[in-house]
Amino acid sequence: MTKEVHFLPDDVKITVEDNENLLAAAATAGVYIHAYCGGDGVCGKCKCKIEEGAAGASGPPADKDGYRLACQVTIKDDLVVSIPETVKKDGQALKRKPKTTRAISARSMSELVGTWKLDPPVEKRFLKLTPPSADDNTPDLQRLLRAIRKGCYDCAEPTYDHPQLLQELPATLREANWEVTVIVLRGKRAEEPDRIIAVEAGDTTDRLYGLAMDIGTTTVCGLLLDLNSGKVMAEASGYNDQIRFGEDVISRMIYSQKPGGLEELQKQVIRTINKVIETVCRQVIISPSDISYIMAAGNTVMSQLLLAVNPKYLREAPYVPTCSQMPLTRAAALGVYAHPSVRLFLYPSIASYVGGDIVAGVHACQMHKSPELTLFIDIGTNGEIVVGNQEWMACTACSAGPAFEGGGIKHGMRANTGAIENFHIHPETLDPMIITIDRTKPCGICGSGLISIVSELLEAGVIDQQGKFNRKLEHPRIRDGIDGYEYVLAWAGDSLTGEDIVINEVDLDNLIRAKGAMYAGYQTLLESVGMTFSDLDRVILAGNFGAYIDLERAICIGLLPDIAREKFYYLGNASLTGCQISLIDTNRFRDRNDVSKLMTNMELSENPQFMNHYMAALFLPHTDMGLFPTVQEKLPL
Amino acid sequence: MTKEVHFLPDDVKITVEDNENLLAAAATAGVYIHAYCGGDGVCGKCKCKIEEGAAGASGPPADKDGYRLACQVTIKDDLVVSIPETVKKDGQALKRKPKTTRAISARSMSELVGTWKLDPPVEKRFLKLTPPSADDNTPDLQRLLRAIRKGCYDCAEPTYDHPQLLQELPATLREANWEVTVIVLRGKRAEEPDRIIAVEAGDTTDRLYGLAMDIGTTTVCGLLLDLNSGKVMAEASGYNDQIRFGEDVISRMIYSQKPGGLEELQKQVIRTINKVIETVCRQVIISPSDISYIMAAGNTVMSQLLLAVNPKYLREAPYVPTCSQMPLTRAAALGVYAHPSVRLFLYPSIASYVGGDIVAGVHACQMHKSPELTLFIDIGTNGEIVVGNQEWMACTACSAGPAFEGGGIKHGMRANTGAIENFHIHPETLDPMIITIDRTKPCGICGSGLISIVSELLEAGVIDQQGKFNRKLEHPRIRDGIDGYEYVLAWAGDSLTGEDIVINEVDLDNLIRAKGAMYAGYQTLLESVGMTFSDLDRVILAGNFGAYIDLERAICIGLLPDIAREKFYYLGNASLTGCQISLIDTNRFRDRNDVSKLMTNMELSENPQFMNHYMAALFLPHTDMGLFPTVQEKLPL
Repeated sequence: MTKEVHFLPDDVKITVEDNENLLAAAATAGVYIHAYCGGDGVCGKCKCKIEEGAAGASGPPADKDGYRLACQVTIKDDLVVSIPETVKKDGQALKRKPKTTRAISARSMSELVGTWKLDPPVEKRFLKLTPPSADDNTPDLQRLLRAIRKGCYDCAEPTYDHPQLLQELPATLREANWEVTVIVLRGKRAEEPDRIIAVEAGDTTDRLYGLAMDIGTTTVCGLLLDLNSGKVMAEASGYNDQIRFGEDVISRMIYSQKPGGLEELQKQVIRTINKVIETVCRQVIISPSDISYIMAAGNTVMSQLLLAVNPKYLREAPYVPTCSQMPLTRAAALGVYAHPSVRLFLYPSIASYVGGDIVAGVHACQMHKSPELTLFIDIGTNGEIVVGNQEWMACTACSAGPAFEGGGIKHGMRANTGAIENFHIHPETLDPMIITIDRTKPCGICGSGLISIVSELLEAGVIDQQGKFNRKLEHPRIRDGIDGYEYVLAWAGDSLTGEDIVINEVDLDNLIRAKGAMYAGYQTLLESVGMTFSDLDRVILAGNFGAYIDLERAICIGLLPDIAREKFYYLGNASLTGCQISLIDTNRFRDRNDVSKLMTNMELSENPQFMNHYMAALFLPHTDMGLFPTVQEKLPL
Repeated sequence: MTKEVHFLPDDVKITVEDNENLLAAAATAGVYIHAYCGGDGVCGKCKCKIEEGAAGASGPPADKDGYRLACQVTIKDDLVVSIPETVKKDGQALKRKPKTTRAISARSMSELVGTWKLDPPVEKRFLKLTPPSADDNTPDLQRLLRAIRKGCYDCAEPTYDHPQLLQELPATLREANWEVTVIVLRGKRAEEPDRIIAVEAGDTTDRLYGLAMDIGTTTVCGLLLDLNSGKVMAEASGYNDQIRFGEDVISRMIYSQKPGGLEELQKQVIRTINKVIETVCRQVIISPSDISYIMAAGNTVMSQLLLAVNPKYLREAPYVPTCSQMPLTRAAALGVYAHPSVRLFLYPSIASYVGGDIVAGVHACQMHKSPELTLFIDIGTNGEIVVGNQEWMACTACSAGPAFEGGGIKHGMRANTGAIENFHIHPETLDPMIITIDRTKPCGICGSGLISIVSELLEAGVIDQQGKFNRKLEHPRIRDGIDGYEYVLAWAGDSLTGEDIVINEVDLDNLIRAKGAMYAGYQTLLESVGMTFSDLDRVILAGNFGAYIDLERAICIGLLPDIAREKFYYLGNASLTGCQISLIDTNRFRDRNDVSKLMTNMELSENPQFMNHYMAALFLPHTDMGLFPTVQEKLPL
């Protein structure tokens, strides 16, 4: 359910989800309210009046003057809210910026993710076998196969490969009085024979589960799916326990070269996977052995570490992975809590830095089936970029650095509680409006916050296009700090850490390099196939980032190309979505080969074109302002 | 090289292999010489004179009268030999029986075993890969696959399944400077993709070995084949270490039901296999890990025990095996000394008592490709019988009992040193001519000896057609012993054991039951398909027995049907031959499926037809003498 909030005196309306926070809603609507403490309710700045619909605004009651703190109000119904005069310096209404533009959720767009047929690659079949007799003493396995494929006694050799199945079969059949459920794994390709993975006594067809899993460098996410209904039954995620050996893939690869390092890293990721499995199973009260298939995706380093395949050569030029298609592994053989026959499928990798997570994402959004020219972006320490359509796809990875994940930023942090995720600056007072995750006092800045801050500072003229502070401005929050010029986002008293939270020129420089690398990546890939941004039909943002990013601001700093906003979509955890689709729909699973076959990798690291584009992109938004017409319009010149 | 021996005064000529023993040659030729001690040289009975070619007769010199002991003479060249007058009671030449008729070796008959193309299902390919570069950083595995199937980058998913291959691949490729040898396992069926099983540094194509293995209840035999030449490089066999838990499959199955019994039996057969592997490898000085493929065959019980699949239901009506096709197992996973990727193929079983050894034998002699109606016989405790041609095959097993392996016979023994393997009786003196294996003093009777003894006693009228001694004969060797009437084959003084070696009526009864079960088996199978013995185009004897058996005598006692002798062939260890052919010729290997598809099992145990035939066959050779015209002619009536 959605509710409408009407902000006065600006006459701005916004539709929000039920239970949205009023301060966050104002920020999204582009309505400025002073807010210093991130929404913790302590700075007392974000005063507002509920003019209509007070019953629909839960939270502490209004003060004697009728004011409430926006950050303490939860929207339960349509509201009309006025922001007090104090906000405006000269009594005039502020010139409103357009409200935040979000990408469209691709999950709701069937032309993007397509439709899924409930036809999973594993299925259970309940069979009543004719018991053997003197006239028919067909062997147990052949009796079973005969029942599976009626009338075809021996049309193919038995398709099972775990000796335990044979070892258990005679007793299972007889104890079950010849009424059993077989779990059959359908061929990876249509022409491959089905494969029996387990035989259970009685009718257990009502229990059929699959696990979709995204094995990230930082986080491992799992979705437990009921494959009879296609529904998500449980969801869990956990930090990858490999983190103790390094934050990013490079440090993991270095650790893997130490004696026992590879095995230790494998052990840790398996441990994480098992924790996720235990968590989802506990939620639904099933056993891990009830899971019949695991579809997983991870970047190339994560995939190789999972299989204990040495990633050494991934980081040495010319950056060669050990394999693209990963072997269909028995999960239990790796130490994963699973029935001994259950397979763990890993999406194939394209190159050292374009891994199965990207292939799964591209697979999910069906670039390989669409005539539309699509730019697929996964922003992170390694920004992965794919451009193409059903005819061809070019992909690459560029080392953007960890700025978007809070790395290399003085007060940078991951998108956790207390991270500044949204920011507005008062265009006249230059005072901040800070929204933090979970609306506690701020303790740092996450990626989406960083983009907000930089674009707001740029638009307000606090920094220039080179990311340098305007030395002419005199403002208590702008100062020459220990690391050079900086803007104080939160004073010590308003912060969770008890110290000032700032953004400085070194931070700006790191952000510019990061966004410059991404943009140069798009340009180089497009150019390599003779295309430009104007040829793009759509841009798909993978990763959770995509849902939270404000397109206007991301374009303003030059992280995303300045093209029509309605071409932007976000897909959330695209890798997990790919795994989920593959678990539910066999045909979709089978067509994944078309994805990796279409994708051609391009190495940027020593590409001179890329270096030129990169140098040109080290500017906010870009040295060539012709590429950013809408930004040029609004920037103070 | 062969030599001719001309026996006088009987004017019988025989062609023998170089280095044949003269006494054995006489026995084969049907020339009677007294011989009491089996050929040990101690009884001094087998006197003869070398009339011509003395230089071609090695051994101790002649005595002062010019006599030599036949058992001490090794034939090195053509000889003319006279047997002294003493042999003949009345000075007349004995009426000579036709000389021994042997079956024809099927191995030399290409219409039987066919031709083998040197085209093994594993092959090594030496590849010089293009090292990766910035322009071509194809993953290691895909680089390898590309080189294997030139120009086809990703035409199929990687066909390998052992993670170790991936784990070792990057280092192997680089240490070998991108020059490697791949060992490729070709698909079990033509349409299946090839499978990489190992990658070795450098060019190792000159070393490619396969192991053919017959896993018998008693003996495990192995042949090491050089798959580059198709030649047998080494051969070894050993008693199945399971023997300590029982001599036959029934006692093994019983043992397997004890706690830990199944695992123990698996362990023991693996142990035996490993000893055989070590022995053959030592002979050629290679490592067990140099073996690239293992093709094995065993009866159903042996096959299930090897895989630790409980054989419990094999011996309970309705006698259901767990599977017919056996899984293609990784040998190392069972504990077999082998490279971790090497597969152990087991021939499929048809029924509880018609196993992979029979299928391999039928496969070897190509019954499934011939229009000729063939009777395939493997004589043993469980006599297995197959009848059919390229259109259909019926098979069965009958429990003959262990008489042919020396079981249930007072002085029965396996075909080892000292076993009486050939026997003639002097038709007038009723004195024995005994030939033992390795020509030592006798210590018992093996299967072929037993057949000789019974047929000779029958022809000489010492026993009647019911297997009872002629009580009217007065002869020191015929007496009423502890276990009833018996014939003394060797007096204590001439025997190795120091006691009389005899054959008695209990022994005769057991033999009659055994041969009766076999014969009733042939009849029942033929009848079930509307055929009779006269329809048979050929009879193939599997097992080592076939080479040593005298057709005349086996027919005389009713073990084999009385049809034209030239229709009989022997194939030796047919199961091992099947494995050998499969290792050398992929097309032959692939057509094995046609064998098991054609074979239909028939259970005899409760079959009333079989019981009728069996009762009628409890006679020497049979109650219906019309079935044995050549025997009827020569029997004293």
